[in-house]
Amino acid sequence: MTLPTTRLMQVFDLRHPVLSAPMAFAGGGALAAAVSRAGGLGLIGGGYGDPAWLEEQFALADGERVGVGFITWSLRKSPALLTDVLRHRPVAVMLSFGDPRPFVDEIRAAGARVICQCQDMGHVMDAVEVRADVIVAQGAEAGGHGASRGTMSFVPEVADHLSRHAPETLLLAAGGIADGRGLAAALMLGADGVLMGTRLWAAREALVQPGHHGAILETDGDGTVRTTIADIARQIPWPRGFTARIRRNAFTERWHGREAALQTAVATEAPRYRQAFAAGDPEQTGVWFGEAAGLIHAIEPAADIVTRVSSEAVRCLERATGGRS
Amino acid sequence: MTLPTTRLMQVFDLRHPVLSAPMAFAGGGALAAAVSRAGGLGLIGGGYGDPAWLEEQFALADGERVGVGFITWSLRKSPALLTDVLRHRPVAVMLSFGDPRPFVDEIRAAGARVICQCQDMGHVMDAVEVRADVIVAQGAEAGGHGASRGTMSFVPEVADHLSRHAPETLLLAAGGIADGRGLAAALMLGADGVLMGTRLWAAREALVQPGHHGAILETDGDGTVRTTIADIARQIPWPRGFTARIRRNAFTERWHGREAALQTAVATEAPRYRQAFAAGDPEQTGVWFGEAAGLIHAIEPAADIVTRVSSEAVRCLERATGGRS
Repeated sequence: MTLPTTRLMQVFDLRHPVLSAPMAFAGGGALAAAVSRAGGLGLIGGGYGDPAWLEEQFALADGERVGVGFITWSLRKSPALLTDVLRHRPVAVMLSFGDPRPFVDEIRAAGARVICQCQDMGHVMDAVEVRADVIVAQGAEAGGHGASRGTMSFVPEVADHLSRHAPETLLLAAGGIADGRGLAAALMLGADGVLMGTRLWAAREALVQPGHHGAILETDGDGTVRTTIADIARQIPWPRGFTARIRRNAFTERWHGREAALQTAVATEAPRYRQAFAAGDPEQTGVWFGEAAGLIHAIEPAADIVTRVSSEAVRCLERATGGRS
Repeated sequence: MTLPTTRLMQVFDLRHPVLSAPMAFAGGGALAAAVSRAGGLGLIGGGYGDPAWLEEQFALADGERVGVGFITWSLRKSPALLTDVLRHRPVAVMLSFGDPRPFVDEIRAAGARVICQCQDMGHVMDAVEVRADVIVAQGAEAGGHGASRGTMSFVPEVADHLSRHAPETLLLAAGGIADGRGLAAALMLGADGVLMGTRLWAAREALVQPGHHGAILETDGDGTVRTTIADIARQIPWPRGFTARIRRNAFTERWHGREAALQTAVATEAPRYRQAFAAGDPEQTGVWFGEAAGLIHAIEPAADIVTRVSSEAVRCLERATGGRS
């Protein structure tokens, strides 16, 4: 028995219904290419829009079929970045955290698919309005930026909405998915596949400092928190309604719940945060992973992760249906 | 094809791996009995411990095999209530929100199974220490009281912990589960079954005012919020770390985020809240349901809900494994 070929796998010509999240800073070209080479689809993290970094990452992807993702409200400040990136012929462009309207025509004209990541039903309606090819329903379990809906009820609610209003639109589940159990559960909830962040953040190819990789192995799923303090410390003006899930550590212990005080101290805290981040300090800065940390016990090659998630999902389905295990 | 007979179904002699949550006020004897009669297991909501109400509800259960659930920190204030209730020979007693140690011996001596509902890994360790027969991993999507872990990653993390430390302990998933997709997903994540609150709150037999039942049908999954304001308004001293998910309405709009002001105004707000609750006002009081609201479109008999959830789960599994649908 193998996983049924989902529409997602047909549209993107994949062997596994798994995309990597376009994680800012961590999701570079090597990770995206490794995911694609293994039979999934890797997305380079466009992040806050550093053109030189993006050029470098597309070069590292070395011609492999990959996509790219942007923080939409940030892309709006430097829209030429999209034009530059589309020259690399990404398979898909994912837009998260903001109005997708200004960008979809240019993405389509370049022959790339439009993926919209959504955190609530309002976002889903926006994504349907722009006729997104793929919607990612991202639950609050996810690492990094997101919002408050839980994956378990959000995914089937989006599936119902799409079946009524946009039946051709594909659906990915994200948030709290790190192994084949999560992939199998996502398929049950009505998704065509999954987008994995935290599990692939903990891949060897991710651009993550060893100190931060070490931290995830010591953290269970209780050990993260949704907060705005990392954005305050980095002086990145995120719109209201979004928070970032990061590791609970000395930094969150000190500042979470004391946002106004952090704002007041930001002239000293900003350089301190950035220095600690660059050094891979696990305590004195944001360490960017989600509740799936409790399911992750090794830093592994991305290809091993992608293929195992897929084969584990098959075994989960077999067990539940009395097939061989 | 039918659902595989899970260990849960064997232990409790069930046709469907579905328990009803022992919802305070809403989960009375009629609902619990209807769930049990349909082949699941119904739990009467012991709530804050009104002995006369509990006697009445056991009478309404009319001899059907049911269980009962308590808010553990509240039960500690009137432990004789447990002794009274055990005379009705409940199949199981569920303990949530507090230290289970003071109660497990008495429950076992009465021949009832011990169910511990957990919101984080610390709770799970406590439940394993008292050798709970069943652990409920409750995600933040759930209506009413709970905490912050999401169902999607919490359930498999608990499953891993149990497989290492207490392989005989059964596992239920709760939070955001309202249909067969959720049950099938829970089985994939490693659960033996599900505990459903919100979906059975929206059953005809639930003790819910028509105005509140009407409200859930008009609310999507974005329309709830985790907050402490209902407990402040009711002057119920919940321990730190727990919040309650209720409908977003005029009451939450006014007070959520203004907890200190509500505390100051509580002499007038407490009677106002209780009056609006008793009247079934959908706006001026807590309306107690979770994110699964977005999956619920009718108030139905509990038996229809339980049997449909089970048959839908079978169809989900069949679709994914290429069986007949």
